[in-house]
Amino acid sequence: AKIDRLARLPKLGARTLVCVDDIANVAELSAAAVRHGTEIECLVEIDCGAGRCGVTTTPEVVAIARAIDAAPGLKFAGLQAYQGAMQHLDRYDERKAKIEIAVAQVRDAVEGLKAQGLECDIVGGGGTGSYYFEGTSGVYNELQCGSYAFMDADYGRILDAGGRRIDEGEWENALFLLTAVMSHAKPDKAICDAGLKAQSVDSGLPKVFGRKDVEYVKCSDEHGVIADPAGVLRVNDKLRLVPGHCDPTCNVHDWYVGVRGGKVEAVWPVSARGKAY
Amino acid sequence: AKIDRLARLPKLGARTLVCVDDIANVAELSAAAVRHGTEIECLVEIDCGAGRCGVTTTPEVVAIARAIDAAPGLKFAGLQAYQGAMQHLDRYDERKAKIEIAVAQVRDAVEGLKAQGLECDIVGGGGTGSYYFEGTSGVYNELQCGSYAFMDADYGRILDAGGRRIDEGEWENALFLLTAVMSHAKPDKAICDAGLKAQSVDSGLPKVFGRKDVEYVKCSDEHGVIADPAGVLRVNDKLRLVPGHCDPTCNVHDWYVGVRGGKVEAVWPVSARGKAY
Repeated sequence: AKIDRLARLPKLGARTLVCVDDIANVAELSAAAVRHGTEIECLVEIDCGAGRCGVTTTPEVVAIARAIDAAPGLKFAGLQAYQGAMQHLDRYDERKAKIEIAVAQVRDAVEGLKAQGLECDIVGGGGTGSYYFEGTSGVYNELQCGSYAFMDADYGRILDAGGRRIDEGEWENALFLLTAVMSHAKPDKAICDAGLKAQSVDSGLPKVFGRKDVEYVKCSDEHGVIADPAGVLRVNDKLRLVPGHCDPTCNVHDWYVGVRGGKVEAVWPVSARGKAY
Repeated sequence: AKIDRLARLPKLGARTLVCVDDIANVAELSAAAVRHGTEIECLVEIDCGAGRCGVTTTPEVVAIARAIDAAPGLKFAGLQAYQGAMQHLDRYDERKAKIEIAVAQVRDAVEGLKAQGLECDIVGGGGTGSYYFEGTSGVYNELQCGSYAFMDADYGRILDAGGRRIDEGEWENALFLLTAVMSHAKPDKAICDAGLKAQSVDSGLPKVFGRKDVEYVKCSDEHGVIADPAGVLRVNDKLRLVPGHCDPTCNVHDWYVGVRGGKVEAVWPVSARGKAY
């Protein structure tokens, strides 16, 4: 059913690309595209270290690409090779070492395909922790860094080439949860109204932006506990939280509120929210 | 602004109760109710061990309750005393010990209020890990156990009075994420399409329901890694996941799909989703 929905998308005017890592899938994709009279562009997915989807050897890449190229309704469009596991390694040289392995693997695949007459329009990968490696590799031609636009507490911790945290040099935080203190019944702690239903804590708790005197220390469904040892906060005080992980945090909200100079300038829908299936 | 919205709710036909743990809030609530010509019922919140919102002593409870009782537009309705921190303690006798402290504290508050002529319509608390204690305490008259309807992997682990996991005795799992295997490019692992955007992992990873041969071992934004040592899964195989924590998992979905006897009987909206603010 998912493949059928996918094959209908080009009719709605959408460029439709799909990653393939299983040769058996090619026949199903082709049949669906033919049924709907559409064309689906296919990337072969390479696992270059992340340990998720993707094949790992050039012969497998070539076999799938040839099958795509031969299948009616499908167009071979290139490679998807995102090394996700390395993005959050703290040290620059560790990330560099991992991406060198990935680049060599992807270069081998590109050359193996070329030897079969198959050119890659797209060689995609790269993330916020590594885009400078892929971008200058001479192999990748599409970057997939997304978190750089927002920054989050977990990505912020990783170090750039000069050893600086990337949220203190290269990038600034641009994504905040605005939360209010809803209770301060105990002298040394405040309770705020941003809990698990307002953010994801899979990569750690949020940071209170611009404050050293208070700290977000515990998260439950609808509440956050803020350690306030000097008792500086008052009920209804507002805090800006930098979420631990931006992707699944955006996913629980319906809207981004765009603020410049203290004024709301735009409200953008989180249009893909809840579309995980 | 939140108090103003709250004070308008009774006009829409909703019974409106609010928890109060700060005497300064009483004047604001009263002013808003008077402004809108409504009545807001107020519970005094007691912190009976959870370490979140709530006052901790009977004199504080009585002072706030008297202020509510005296304020135009407000009605004193009783107590909110939810011991959330104890619900997930594995051992029954540990939970029992914690709730005995809470019950004694709440009883003292109820009696202190009665001595001032203030009767509690509602004495609310209790959760899935403890409702049998509050329910038979002679003090509580409203129970707040919610997860019992669904069960999740984290609650399932706690033990009942007989030492049995509650998801193997008292309750059954009723909440599942239906996920499909989307890749099996490596012999010993499958990748499924339920990741962090389909569930919350704050209380641990999901369990694969009814299977001992495969295990959900890693969660990223859109992917889950399923260890499949014997290679029994195939692309497009469906698995039912029991989420680690039901509350923030329901919060990322728009709909519950009600199934009985293998047939979809109802589709219910998750109407409070995203309404954390």
